[in-house]
Amino acid sequence: MSRWKPNARDRLERAALALFLERGFDSVTVPEITARAGLTTRTFFRHFADKREVLFADADQMPALAARLVHDAPPDLGPIDLVARALPTLAATAFEGRLEQLKHRKAIIDGNDGLRERELRKKEQLVDAIAEAFRHRGVDDLTAAVTAETAVGVVKVALRRWVESSGQEPLRTVMTDSLAQISEAFDQFNQPRSGPRRSAESPLIA
Amino acid sequence: MSRWKPNARDRLERAALALFLERGFDSVTVPEITARAGLTTRTFFRHFADKREVLFADADQMPALAARLVHDAPPDLGPIDLVARALPTLAATAFEGRLEQLKHRKAIIDGNDGLRERELRKKEQLVDAIAEAFRHRGVDDLTAAVTAETAVGVVKVALRRWVESSGQEPLRTVMTDSLAQISEAFDQFNQPRSGPRRSAESPLIA
Repeated sequence: MSRWKPNARDRLERAALALFLERGFDSVTVPEITARAGLTTRTFFRHFADKREVLFADADQMPALAARLVHDAPPDLGPIDLVARALPTLAATAFEGRLEQLKHRKAIIDGNDGLRERELRKKEQLVDAIAEAFRHRGVDDLTAAVTAETAVGVVKVALRRWVESSGQEPLRTVMTDSLAQISEAFDQFNQPRSGPRRSAESPLIA
Repeated sequence: MSRWKPNARDRLERAALALFLERGFDSVTVPEITARAGLTTRTFFRHFADKREVLFADADQMPALAARLVHDAPPDLGPIDLVARALPTLAATAFEGRLEQLKHRKAIIDGNDGLRERELRKKEQLVDAIAEAFRHRGVDDLTAAVTAETAVGVVKVALRRWVESSGQEPLRTVMTDSLAQISEAFDQFNQPRSGPRRSAESPLIA
């Protein structure tokens, strides 16, 4: 990167988000973005395929990143332990330090049907990539699929809460809390509070 | 309903699905659907707002149905217990007995970007409705949101598996299995198999 254009990508992203917010995503052109950023369209297209990519370039990386986190985990780790361990890395790699951008991005996407649909499609691809990575670890089909849905659900809920609360708590804390809440709900299901553990009631053990 | 048009809605749905499969969703018209079904367009529009509604009329009912199941559950039931109890009712009310239609519907939607996006949007609305219903029961925000994501994930995975396996097992069994798998994964997380329960390791108890 030329020393005359430090952080070109970041500047382009900030300029684009500001313009999308001011004037609506549909009406903003790439030359307007580059003019605002003080950069050339040539520089823009070195970083993004089109103006949509300013919003989705990072989301496009998510399936590969998540799959790598699953792939690199110790082989004997249970599926939810793996998710619990991967969440802080995911937070640090993909989201933390980008609160303002993510807030603007969310506002832009929420206001545009086409963008919301693309966002949902990206989430779907993320679920599929995680499920596939779990299957590669030998996790059975059904567990792989449902764990992937749950993991993406936890990330989605945590991310929304983090952005909406303007980062009151660190994202990794919100993510850990989200997982802890659903984990607690399952613990309550597996082990009713008002009686002995279900397994202790089983005739095999009693 | 006139005795000359028994099951008009069902006949219209079958005719529409057959035509969508044969010729692609986009190129089929309402008069073609009604001709195939041997009914009038007037009858069609008494049952469906447009040809899209043939695919989504039932999905449109899902948020209200799921919210009612959450609302009607005994107040002291934990969130996952509630989901576990609601799944068979959901299966019976919304899906069972409709395997062929659901199979065709899935094939049509999978082959059309616009329909897939609408399907994802409906799922999103279902998640929101369930989360809202949980909050009304006094479940905290975070648990409500993550439980709703997980519940819809379980239903989605089970439904896909049921349709893809041509209903080899009853849907309620597949749903119960999906929930059992993710529950087992959380149980493993909450209580590692190779050691004492996490709480027993806590210095507060040791």
